[in-house]
Amino acid sequence: MFKLVTHNRHKYEEMRKIVPGLKMVDMEYPEIQANTLEEVVDFSLEYLSKVIGENFIIDDSGLFIEALNSFPGVYSAYVFDTLGNEGILKLMEEKERREAYFKTVVGIRFEGINYKLVGICHGKIAEEPKGENGFGYDPIFIPEGSEKTFAEMSTEEKNRVSHRGKAIIKLAGFMERFGVH
Amino acid sequence: MFKLVTHNRHKYEEMRKIVPGLKMVDMEYPEIQANTLEEVVDFSLEYLSKVIGENFIIDDSGLFIEALNSFPGVYSAYVFDTLGNEGILKLMEEKERREAYFKTVVGIRFEGINYKLVGICHGKIAEEPKGENGFGYDPIFIPEGSEKTFAEMSTEEKNRVSHRGKAIIKLAGFMERFGVH
Repeated sequence: MFKLVTHNRHKYEEMRKIVPGLKMVDMEYPEIQANTLEEVVDFSLEYLSKVIGENFIIDDSGLFIEALNSFPGVYSAYVFDTLGNEGILKLMEEKERREAYFKTVVGIRFEGINYKLVGICHGKIAEEPKGENGFGYDPIFIPEGSEKTFAEMSTEEKNRVSHRGKAIIKLAGFMERFGVH
Repeated sequence: MFKLVTHNRHKYEEMRKIVPGLKMVDMEYPEIQANTLEEVVDFSLEYLSKVIGENFIIDDSGLFIEALNSFPGVYSAYVFDTLGNEGILKLMEEKERREAYFKTVVGIRFEGINYKLVGICHGKIAEEPKGENGFGYDPIFIPEGSEKTFAEMSTEEKNRVSHRGKAIIKLAGFMERFGVH
């Protein structure tokens, strides 16, 4: 079974609904400044493989807002900690186009090889925060085909459409194919 | 003589006014996601020492705005490229306190040892962009004791009060003490 290396328990709770046996290693690790989540994940997989060995996974996710040149993107966690949803909504004032997408890259280190699985969820930035569930930008993101923000959904509902849900479905497929139990 | 490793010619031009013989190596290099410029510089010095050898310097700088929890800080370059000065001014609307500081950390790799020299310039965020000189956030930053933004100053004027100017004065002292010509 894989271990998820993260300092974010919310991510673990979401993943565990789809991959029940998943373990969590509560740990922070270095990430690189880069233009893409994929580059960040590659670097961290290499780093962690030297520190904690094999057969673990990591999750790097970001919110990419079209009208803000993909901001906050790779730095979503930092921007959330400093500006919060309030700052994002401020930046979105007077913006006509509110399209955005969430993207998750799950990095897998399995028997000495790095794999990456991607999940994307398109949607838009809400006019105001709504809902109490989830974490981070969930109260201001409305996925395509829904009227509700992620934060107004249960974990199961969110997983059915979310970036992370899609990546974890792929992870479950990966584990089945490679016989990881 | 040291080589400045950077992809930003503006930084080089400012430094050269104080350290005339300085060379420039035009190169991008990996930076880590971290809470402080010092951590970023430490990581890059180690990385670059393996790639280009010894006796070089790097400059990592950021703008830290009090009312925005130190945003954009370590990610100032990324935020400038995505949101620009317009985005910062948007975030500062209705903020009563406009205090901010610029900070430069010059990292030196000299005979196998890492050194760091710090320069800080306190000031405030202007109400609107002014001036054509400098680069980045210069049009919206007014240093303490001045009425002008950095972008309304000549390089010499800016160097006398700026974060980078202060760090480079220290660099000149370092070079004299260690006999770097």
